[in-house]
Amino acid sequence: MKKVAVLLAGNGVYDGAEINEAILTLLHIAKNGATYQCFAPDIEQLHTINHLTGEEMSEKRNVLVEAARIARGDIKALNHLNSDQFDALIVPGGFGAAKNLCDFAVNGAQATINNDVLNACKKFANANKPAGYMCIAPALIPFIYDEAKITIGNDKDTAAALTKLGATHLNCDVDDVVIDHHNKIVTTPAYMLAQSIVEADAGIEKLVKSVLALN
Amino acid sequence: MKKVAVLLAGNGVYDGAEINEAILTLLHIAKNGATYQCFAPDIEQLHTINHLTGEEMSEKRNVLVEAARIARGDIKALNHLNSDQFDALIVPGGFGAAKNLCDFAVNGAQATINNDVLNACKKFANANKPAGYMCIAPALIPFIYDEAKITIGNDKDTAAALTKLGATHLNCDVDDVVIDHHNKIVTTPAYMLAQSIVEADAGIEKLVKSVLALN
Repeated sequence: MKKVAVLLAGNGVYDGAEINEAILTLLHIAKNGATYQCFAPDIEQLHTINHLTGEEMSEKRNVLVEAARIARGDIKALNHLNSDQFDALIVPGGFGAAKNLCDFAVNGAQATINNDVLNACKKFANANKPAGYMCIAPALIPFIYDEAKITIGNDKDTAAALTKLGATHLNCDVDDVVIDHHNKIVTTPAYMLAQSIVEADAGIEKLVKSVLALN
Repeated sequence: MKKVAVLLAGNGVYDGAEINEAILTLLHIAKNGATYQCFAPDIEQLHTINHLTGEEMSEKRNVLVEAARIARGDIKALNHLNSDQFDALIVPGGFGAAKNLCDFAVNGAQATINNDVLNACKKFANANKPAGYMCIAPALIPFIYDEAKITIGNDKDTAAALTKLGATHLNCDVDDVVIDHHNKIVTTPAYMLAQSIVEADAGIEKLVKSVLALN
């Protein structure tokens, strides 16, 4: 039975992991006969957004503690991820991927990546184990792989910034994936394009199946 | 196209709506050709639980603001729910259903229900519109219906407390539902019994399909 490490960036589209994407990822991993373990970095979120109003709140929240809500408490700190124990890595999106795992949402083509995130993802890359990144999470890929084909959908400005960071961007429909066979990376637009949970589900199901098939 | 109101009790299994149940509910509503609108009461949570440690945190959170994370911001305060605009109601579980929507988790057979929750749910009952309650959310049912057949799985103590409140409890497997045809209520154990997201998904899919078929 294949084991997948799932990297969460918090809990909520505007400051953490996109919840629909995260749960659909877990669902399709399990439905395809694999198991999962969730991880998140034990760091403070960039900020906390009131998801009702879109405004910033004064309180500080921790990425690992909030991501634990998605995982029903069954989650580990990212620096405890031993990639030898897993066959693949999947990273759901949400602004947290571009605010907490790296700072692409703030700094665009001048972005930097969190060190624990880089180390964990690099181990999967160096072992040539497959990895899936969805929504805006492909913004992490230029830091992890020297040259990679990715998609974040079809947003020109975002694609241009990722190209400056060193990735090759391909436009992609919401229900499809881009597969970089050399690096064993699968990407899908998810809520970068999805207008409904059914649209997001279609691409995420294909991403999970593609990642598991690349093993 | 049928419209379903989904009542969320926050965001997280230990103090709010169970996130897996909530997202799977939305997924199956959409996959079965219906639409949904999320609602939550604009009230303070009973408390905030650190889902990594299980311990209570000092901060106060609002049920509507936190539930907005699940709904990607597309959520309305429960007192704005006009039941005339919806064909059915579905209430996912999680401790929030028994801590924020009513106080069954604290007071068991002496529980009381939040007034806005009672008013909203009663309108669906009085109009004989179908309703689905999963996991521990059936604890709300004795307050809404005079006599109803329900399930929360097979936990004897919980079932006994619900019987004292006036419900008739039937044991039920995780992948099945109990349907009260007279009242048009569908219940399923979900994470009261589920050992995996696939098990939860099976019962929730059946609940959603059953609710939509009762229209």
